[in-house]
Amino acid sequence: MKRVIVYPGSFDPVTYGHLDIIKRALKICDQLIIAVSSNPTKKSLLSLRERILLLKETIKEMKDVRVEEFDGLLVDFLKRKGVRIIIRGLRAVSDFEYEFQMVLANRKLDEKTETIFMMPTEAYFYLSSSLVKELAGLGADISRYVPKFVEEKLKEKISHAKSQKKTF
Amino acid sequence: MKRVIVYPGSFDPVTYGHLDIIKRALKICDQLIIAVSSNPTKKSLLSLRERILLLKETIKEMKDVRVEEFDGLLVDFLKRKGVRIIIRGLRAVSDFEYEFQMVLANRKLDEKTETIFMMPTEAYFYLSSSLVKELAGLGADISRYVPKFVEEKLKEKISHAKSQKKTF
Amino acid sequence: MKRVIVYPGSFDPVTYGHLDIIKRALKICDQLIIAVSSNPTKKSLLSLRERILLLKETIKEMKDVRVEEFDGLLVDFLKRKGVRIIIRGLRAVSDFEYEFQMVLANRKLDEKTETIFMMPTEAYFYLSSSLVKELAGLGADISRYVPKFVEEKLKEKISHAKSQKKTF
Amino acid sequence: MKRVIVYPGSFDPVTYGHLDIIKRALKICDQLIIAVSSNPTKKSLLSLRERILLLKETIKEMKDVRVEEFDGLLVDFLKRKGVRIIIRGLRAVSDFEYEFQMVLANRKLDEKTETIFMMPTEAYFYLSSSLVKELAGLGADISRYVPKFVEEKLKEKISHAKSQKKTF
Amino acid sequence: MKRVIVYPGSFDPVTYGHLDIIKRALKICDQLIIAVSSNPTKKSLLSLRERILLLKETIKEMKDVRVEEFDGLLVDFLKRKGVRIIIRGLRAVSDFEYEFQMVLANRKLDEKTETIFMMPTEAYFYLSSSLVKELAGLGADISRYVPKFVEEKLKEKISHAKSQKKTF
Amino acid sequence: MKRVIVYPGSFDPVTYGHLDIIKRALKICDQLIIAVSSNPTKKSLLSLRERILLLKETIKEMKDVRVEEFDGLLVDFLKRKGVRIIIRGLRAVSDFEYEFQMVLANRKLDEKTETIFMMPTEAYFYLSSSLVKELAGLGADISRYVPKFVEEKLKEKISHAKSQKKTF
Repeated sequence: MKRVIVYPGSFDPVTYGHLDIIKRALKICDQLIIAVSSNPTKKSLLSLRERILLLKETIKEMKDVRVEEFDGLLVDFLKRKGVRIIIRGLRAVSDFEYEFQMVLANRKLDEKTETIFMMPTEAYFYLSSSLVKELAGLGADISRYVPKFVEEKLKEKISHAKSQKKTF
Repeated sequence: MKRVIVYPGSFDPVTYGHLDIIKRALKICDQLIIAVSSNPTKKSLLSLRERILLLKETIKEMKDVRVEEFDGLLVDFLKRKGVRIIIRGLRAVSDFEYEFQMVLANRKLDEKTETIFMMPTEAYFYLSSSLVKELAGLGADISRYVPKFVEEKLKEKISHAKSQKKTF
Repeated sequence: MKRVIVYPGSFDPVTYGHLDIIKRALKICDQLIIAVSSNPTKKSLLSLRERILLLKETIKEMKDVRVEEFDGLLVDFLKRKGVRIIIRGLRAVSDFEYEFQMVLANRKLDEKTETIFMMPTEAYFYLSSSLVKELAGLGADISRYVPKFVEEKLKEKISHAKSQKKTF
Repeated sequence: MKRVIVYPGSFDPVTYGHLDIIKRALKICDQLIIAVSSNPTKKSLLSLRERILLLKETIKEMKDVRVEEFDGLLVDFLKRKGVRIIIRGLRAVSDFEYEFQMVLANRKLDEKTETIFMMPTEAYFYLSSSLVKELAGLGADISRYVPKFVEEKLKEKISHAKSQKKTF
Repeated sequence: MKRVIVYPGSFDPVTYGHLDIIKRALKICDQLIIAVSSNPTKKSLLSLRERILLLKETIKEMKDVRVEEFDGLLVDFLKRKGVRIIIRGLRAVSDFEYEFQMVLANRKLDEKTETIFMMPTEAYFYLSSSLVKELAGLGADISRYVPKFVEEKLKEKISHAKSQKKTF
Repeated sequence: MKRVIVYPGSFDPVTYGHLDIIKRALKICDQLIIAVSSNPTKKSLLSLRERILLLKETIKEMKDVRVEEFDGLLVDFLKRKGVRIIIRGLRAVSDFEYEFQMVLANRKLDEKTETIFMMPTEAYFYLSSSLVKELAGLGADISRYVPKFVEEKLKEKISHAKSQKKTF
């Protein structure tokens, strides 16, 4: 039987930190589903469609990975897919308590669900999508953190946001 | 002389984690005043009146507890009530520094004030009002975290919010 | 009925940080019992008798406090005394998880037991008996951290330890 | 050659915690440049001009310090000034991971940049600009945390904000 | 191909916290090898043989788990077994940095090695072998933390240790 | 006037993490004194003389650095040298509270003393002398962590320790 793991997140945008976890996750499963949250209450810079496209481009050379969106509860998505294992990256102490809260909440919603954590490589310990957006907003070179096409998309988005601000 | 303790918070909404602290607090005092902050700068999902009503319903079988609202500084509320002891629940490391900041600020505003901390039961270590609202927004069963009438109120509020979003 | 609280510890030696907690504890109870652990598996610099004498000297002007030793489990001491409330000082994040472990263990040993935490004043946030002993061992002035007679006892102990090392 | 250090921040508003770091920084350099971020994506209560004026007033008796604004990336500001050393205050564990993220990001943007950290005095461990604004908003006395003219400016700003709220 | 995971530790003694991780680990692999460290530089209360016997007794009803000892580097044990995945339980923030240090050290010793983390159930967040030994030494009931035969072995060990102390 | 900074520690043994801090420190001062503690109460694997020799070998190509030993209080060493600034590396959250305790203690012993912190490169975040000794004891390749001659010294020390254990 194929061992499938779900890697959920908002990926706003995908970074090399996410890619590092994706590659590590593939060592411990047969198939990885990257589940992009469409959660409309969390504001994202990129639309759901943009976040998914960037992820698909990022993984296009990789086998055994696919990208899907999910709406509502993660445990319901897992049930629909017949998957029980969630993977999350764990970087710094500040991640820790939020992640534990999620593990416990998900276990209570569906006790068959298990979450496993993996550590990215040191270079990505302090990398997050928020940092990337903040740096891009300040005009910094972010090519160490995200693929080329993500950098371009972010810059386009940000210059668009700025021109809108000016106009209205 | 009666020993009175104040348990302040925004209770947006009250959870079983709060109830756990209320019960423990009653073991160390004669009377507990739950002080609901009306602080208008913090956005709450529920109105002050709703938060108070849900708290009153939650404690209606309990003796020696009452619910009051307060406006402005907590130390001024304490002075008006002639109370010197504040109680707060302490769950995770992330609570810790925020709570310490509050203790020190309150001591500086009124050095007679003392704050004591108690730990909830393990099942509520990672429970917070924010988590409950987020789960309710995603349609999850939150009956392990809040009383029935709180769950109903939250669902009503959230469906109202959604229908408003659709309309406008 | 008198409200009694137990303040347990090894007090090897008592510091101004302990004294700060003792004074705060007295604001929330009628009587405080300082319970000095005789636990022979933890190595202490001072003997149980010395630790108790220094504590007694420290609190000799204070009403409603007394010093006792205890052997074995703290919850058994509480039962013998008919007391249910433990107080502990909480200083830094590194205290936090150890203290939580103790709270949970004590609750499991006797569910009637409750532990409350109080914060010392900022000046004592990073003060501990170990620091005091380390500084005394290096010949530092520790009069900001402990009463005069504690400083003298420590110096006597430490010079005795040194002369013994030389001899044998 | 003069040793120059840059102390960056938003200073919204300057507090005695910042002043403590400024004084300590002056012990390890010949000149300190306080670099006030004009970053328009972070909402500040005070305008850039107001934040700079309050800082200038705060340091007016001090030699070897000056206040400048910066726009965009801090590393670009450092290059323009020919400075390589950044100083930041480090207070609590919660600062820690954010600051480390910044150090690593700045090193990647310009590897010549170095960041050094200093600790404020204990009394300011839990002091932040946010706390000061929150307390001022509740009408508290904040004279222990900020100079007189900062307190006045904050009160003026806040009463203005309130009267605006009422009107619209 | 069978997916095998190694769960390393000193298990001095095995607790219900370890058992919780063992059960969760079995959900994500085909076979689990519990690798008991014989590391002679860490002092253990129980001998390697005793630790292994207690583990074997604990898992005797479980399929797909076996207990082995290892000497020297964990990565060398993994190579001999042809296994690449290590599992560790992650409980509290204090575990976090130690575990990260181990992950990084193991990756540097053999980059093919991956470590995954799982969280035990809340009831075991603050449970450790050290706590169990400390409580047993004080005569506490530890039946909530370890199987019956572990409790008996510990008591036997501890009373033996005491009688030896008396004699010499 | 020359700006001198003291970098204190036990350096048991010096690692590439220390070397990283030494190089960074040299960017912010004219001269660096590495102060090796002879503190006899802390057990070290290497003798004071060995620790100093390895440090001297490590820095032999570097200008403006020298190695000295100190005995007793660090603040007294600083006074004798006429130096006021201490530098320490800050790696992980677990360092944080210990380092803060030291800063505060040193300030109380001599208020002119200032401590500054710098972060090593990510690759050395979780590197410590203890880890190096533990890995060397298990026969691991530690060439990523320490210079060649440190590795050799450690191996010699450890094999000597083993042969002694066998004999007695």
